[in-house]
Amino acid sequence: MRKVALGIDIGGTNTDIAFVDREGSCLGEDRLSTSDFPQPEVFVAALAEKVRLLERSLPEPVEVIGIGIGAPMGNINKGTIEEPADLQWKGITPLADLLREHIDLPILVTNDANAAAVGEMIYGEAKGMKNFAVITLGTGLGSGIVIDGKLLYGQDGFAGEVGHTIVRPGKTNRECGCGRYGCLETYVSATGLKRTLFKIMSDSIEPSELRDMSFNEMTSLDIAEAAERGDVLAKRAFDHTGEMLGLKLADLVAHTNPEAIFLFGGLALAKGLIMEPTQRAFHDNLLSIYRGKVKLLASGLTSKSSAVLGASALAWDQYDAGNA
Amino acid sequence: MRKVALGIDIGGTNTDIAFVDREGSCLGEDRLSTSDFPQPEVFVAALAEKVRLLERSLPEPVEVIGIGIGAPMGNINKGTIEEPADLQWKGITPLADLLREHIDLPILVTNDANAAAVGEMIYGEAKGMKNFAVITLGTGLGSGIVIDGKLLYGQDGFAGEVGHTIVRPGKTNRECGCGRYGCLETYVSATGLKRTLFKIMSDSIEPSELRDMSFNEMTSLDIAEAAERGDVLAKRAFDHTGEMLGLKLADLVAHTNPEAIFLFGGLALAKGLIMEPTQRAFHDNLLSIYRGKVKLLASGLTSKSSAVLGASALAWDQYDAGNA
Repeated sequence: MRKVALGIDIGGTNTDIAFVDREGSCLGEDRLSTSDFPQPEVFVAALAEKVRLLERSLPEPVEVIGIGIGAPMGNINKGTIEEPADLQWKGITPLADLLREHIDLPILVTNDANAAAVGEMIYGEAKGMKNFAVITLGTGLGSGIVIDGKLLYGQDGFAGEVGHTIVRPGKTNRECGCGRYGCLETYVSATGLKRTLFKIMSDSIEPSELRDMSFNEMTSLDIAEAAERGDVLAKRAFDHTGEMLGLKLADLVAHTNPEAIFLFGGLALAKGLIMEPTQRAFHDNLLSIYRGKVKLLASGLTSKSSAVLGASALAWDQYDAGNA
Repeated sequence: MRKVALGIDIGGTNTDIAFVDREGSCLGEDRLSTSDFPQPEVFVAALAEKVRLLERSLPEPVEVIGIGIGAPMGNINKGTIEEPADLQWKGITPLADLLREHIDLPILVTNDANAAAVGEMIYGEAKGMKNFAVITLGTGLGSGIVIDGKLLYGQDGFAGEVGHTIVRPGKTNRECGCGRYGCLETYVSATGLKRTLFKIMSDSIEPSELRDMSFNEMTSLDIAEAAERGDVLAKRAFDHTGEMLGLKLADLVAHTNPEAIFLFGGLALAKGLIMEPTQRAFHDNLLSIYRGKVKLLASGLTSKSSAVLGASALAWDQYDAGNA
């Protein structure tokens, strides 16, 4: 019987589930709405039912070795989701305990960036690497740091919040969803890119096709497409974003000296637009002892299902450790 | 026979050596000049001779379990010193190999901040802690980060260069000895404090007793003593230094989520002068999930011999691991 892991990626809008084998092949996937469920208990019951139906619909019988869950503010130590800004469940949700009432399997819960890092290690470009980091560029900026082949969780399970390192301290700088000001993710993320573009549009009088779109309707994809078509302001917004990211990735290296840093997620798909200015700033700001040693790469997981793949990798990583 | 470790702390001016037992008691110590030896081979021969003489002079016969060396740019993987800015030995010095020609014992080489971190874990206030960091405030700013009870070395042995994270990017900011601009240690270190005081003296017209001293004759101790006597500018220099340190320690937490951060070294001995503004800025800049969880403490190693104690702890840490 084929062994598979169940990956669950919980986002503010949707939750993806997938059964994934050790090589990263997805045997079946499905989705349910997260936002339809104000009560986590009801959500978990619906989730468990989806999982049962999906397993039954798979082309072959499988042995499920465990469940990996990526969720905002997922706490690996307790299997909880704690005070997530992006979910409607307030306080502390004992997610693993709730799910265990329905499914009797090992369950690991961590945030989506940590899951992405393990996904990179199990299925992606970080195979065989011992020290690396993954930066996820979506609505916010997440990070997962691997040290000596193991995810860095820190004392309370919350290591790797690089999106909330501060680039511009003080209340005159950009307000962050975390309640502080000047956090990296207010500059470097899909939303940060858009905020930078709006700043550039306000400072400059140069024309841009993006001046016809509202803040709420504009996505990072619109900015990427405008930049590809030669829009000067859109291009400049990417350059500023990359400059800030490269600077702070140099700081990340000064903390943890990884072998490589991978960029993952929607904004990272803009390829050269974001990669080139980031590479430049990264190199310029790197302490000499690290120069030429730390690679800055695009993630090897570039499909739409990358997040749920990463979640499933958590279960494989634990399974491998138990069978080493 | 009492078991002891040999600690060696190599600084630009002097090298300290000490035999230290598992409890951190120093059985004997000595010192030789580093700067007298332009050739590392000659230095190592003189060092080995000093060690032999010191061992013979100890009050009782001892069994030496290993040698730990703290040195600028010490590389744990190779036992080398690489391109140290603060020593006259250029290029790569194969320190462990050179010393092994004279003394046949396990030898570990790392930088002094890493040694201080292990010292804190073996003898000091971090006993039993698994995740913490030590910040050394001397001429520069060093850092040693412990993850899961082990020093974080990273891929190339050079993790923990927090002194070279960048607080103010760009060439208009403070020049650093590393060739870049705006590094944390240009603001937060004995030298950084003095540079800040000189900036404050240039900006303000307020009187200060420190206006009678030259840059070269002034030490951080002079500034501390002036502040204790109520000198407003000296006090302000400490406040600015602490603000910058607290801000960047919050970033350190966002990377590694430690249980505690210890301040170690000369400047840290200024106690409240540096601790209070640092605590304030640390708390203000900490992401909410970490608040109240991460302690900011003074090092438990406060003697003049702290650095060489830390170096000896490297040997004990390896010895303990081998006998666990």
